[in-house]
Amino acid sequence: MSDARRFSIAAMTAFTRDALLACGVPAADADIVAKAMIEADLTGFDAHGIFRLKTYVDNLKSNRINPKADIKVLQRAPATALIDGDNGIGHLVMTQAANLAVELARASGIGWVGARNSNHAGAAGIYAEIPVTQGMVGIYAAVSTANHMAPWGGAEALLGTNPIAVGIPAGKKEAPVLLDIATSVSSFGTIRQHLVTGKPLEEGWVVHSKTGQPITDPKKVSEGVLLPIGGHKGGGLALIIGLLAGVLNGAAFGRDVIDMTGPGAGASNTGQFMIALDVSRFMPLEQFGAEMDRHLDELRSSPTLPGFDAIHLPGEGRRKRREERGANGVPLPSTLIKQLDDLATKLGLQPLTAR
Amino acid sequence: MSDARRFSIAAMTAFTRDALLACGVPAADADIVAKAMIEADLTGFDAHGIFRLKTYVDNLKSNRINPKADIKVLQRAPATALIDGDNGIGHLVMTQAANLAVELARASGIGWVGARNSNHAGAAGIYAEIPVTQGMVGIYAAVSTANHMAPWGGAEALLGTNPIAVGIPAGKKEAPVLLDIATSVSSFGTIRQHLVTGKPLEEGWVVHSKTGQPITDPKKVSEGVLLPIGGHKGGGLALIIGLLAGVLNGAAFGRDVIDMTGPGAGASNTGQFMIALDVSRFMPLEQFGAEMDRHLDELRSSPTLPGFDAIHLPGEGRRKRREERGANGVPLPSTLIKQLDDLATKLGLQPLTAR
Repeated sequence: MSDARRFSIAAMTAFTRDALLACGVPAADADIVAKAMIEADLTGFDAHGIFRLKTYVDNLKSNRINPKADIKVLQRAPATALIDGDNGIGHLVMTQAANLAVELARASGIGWVGARNSNHAGAAGIYAEIPVTQGMVGIYAAVSTANHMAPWGGAEALLGTNPIAVGIPAGKKEAPVLLDIATSVSSFGTIRQHLVTGKPLEEGWVVHSKTGQPITDPKKVSEGVLLPIGGHKGGGLALIIGLLAGVLNGAAFGRDVIDMTGPGAGASNTGQFMIALDVSRFMPLEQFGAEMDRHLDELRSSPTLPGFDAIHLPGEGRRKRREERGANGVPLPSTLIKQLDDLATKLGLQPLTAR
Repeated sequence: MSDARRFSIAAMTAFTRDALLACGVPAADADIVAKAMIEADLTGFDAHGIFRLKTYVDNLKSNRINPKADIKVLQRAPATALIDGDNGIGHLVMTQAANLAVELARASGIGWVGARNSNHAGAAGIYAEIPVTQGMVGIYAAVSTANHMAPWGGAEALLGTNPIAVGIPAGKKEAPVLLDIATSVSSFGTIRQHLVTGKPLEEGWVVHSKTGQPITDPKKVSEGVLLPIGGHKGGGLALIIGLLAGVLNGAAFGRDVIDMTGPGAGASNTGQFMIALDVSRFMPLEQFGAEMDRHLDELRSSPTLPGFDAIHLPGEGRRKRREERGANGVPLPSTLIKQLDDLATKLGLQPLTAR
């Protein structure tokens, strides 16, 4: 990003908050959403951070997403809950779900909270990390807000690239383990970047629905389906996540999924779930952390394959980016800066570039 | 299997039970283990059924596995538990874990039960299916009893091909969804079969630890490491499962894993976990089943890619095999029949072939 300028987390959060306020989002909710959105930028998930603000603003302004959501707990058991997001911003719904999961886990050892009538919630890892800060394992999974995969062997996009994120606390030395993956070989975000740069797609990412042959031209992606990791295995994982985050919560799945990036006025009825598991119900947290540190260090110190200069464990890069970007700010490309300046003009806000 | 003879489930279960009794396993435990083992044969997971009996008998006879295990619940919360398998047969430990998970889920909505000091428990799907029969979602995961994968980018086998199985109830028309996968591209069982037949391995299954080049000669597998599904993604999933099923339970992980297929006298300290999630805490089971049936039918009826004659959903094949083998018996190859006859002679049992 040679044309990138850096912006501080504080400025980006304040700008995002002000934009949400201008859409009628209450102040307390705007705080939560802005923090969760910019957390994605801070930890390096640029495609899920301020990059999405314009889309969210458009959807809030058109009331396709409800700016004044009244999130309700529909059902609650000692260790499970089902919440209705009232078509609110996904970040708000899932932050509340994660906090409730932690509360249930504190009392019962584990909490599983499902959500319906939610929306796109940004980077999965943000929510998996909330229990980690409380000494708990966090697991988040979601039905993607558009279908780009088929059931294994199928030619029609009836499944999302349904992501899963898992966070596990470590000890004093190591970064918490934080895995955040789509169940497709390539995420749709990566493909979207190739669409911008014109760089060809790798074989194995997308196949043509009619011919089954690889699609490498990013402009032709809509003629095919994305492939899952490990063939039927990743296809099965995407299906399982869709059923548990979607169908079980009374949320959209399969043919009921509406592509929110396309035109239309319908609500997405996005489904997600969040698990918190209390480590201390299995062993003292300090002992667990020491064991994690020992094992992670042994894995990282083990010999590498030719072509790899180091073993990178999931969560390490996240910690490094958090430190580096927290100190130096987040680089944003000029196209995005322009878009955000236009948004500021439209909403009557102090632009990010003037903060 | 042109040289295969078929044996009834009843005869195979009785033979297995008698073999376990002859090793000093109490009758009630032998019943449970025999049923769980032959369930693998019934549902088509031949590499995890009676095929393993000789190894289990050897380990029980040498006390490497404890025939008279006293399984204890070490910690219990409203929705979690940690059990100590007392180095007993894995099938016994995990059947108890699954039943306890169902009990916790009945009271609290979900139950997560971890196990330490367990052993190889056979086919993962068996345990994921136990909650399904109670109208619940079942999730099982385990640390493999030998390390064949490396952390992503690594050359040393420090991770198992750690499997996960997920079962989800369906309605009146469809088979329950039952996904049972290793996190490696090829399971080690498949590679073992190639070792027997001499058929070359596919590229992408195993790479040489020194050169990073594909190993296709099954005799050379020990010179390399198995590859995970989706590169760093499957490598991350194997790691997560190892940490949650192993480290969190105080069970073996990484360098602490002992290859139980090799010589030695040590206990494996295998770790597994089992989750049951009560569907009725989210929506009435009947409504959920109807929704599952609708969606699964829509997926199956969708168009196929060239090269695929049908879309097979996870769990369908399992139901078909259960019906077919339940009616016609299980085909066993002559080499296995010979091994079981020798085992009968050694243990002083009526041979399977005479039942």
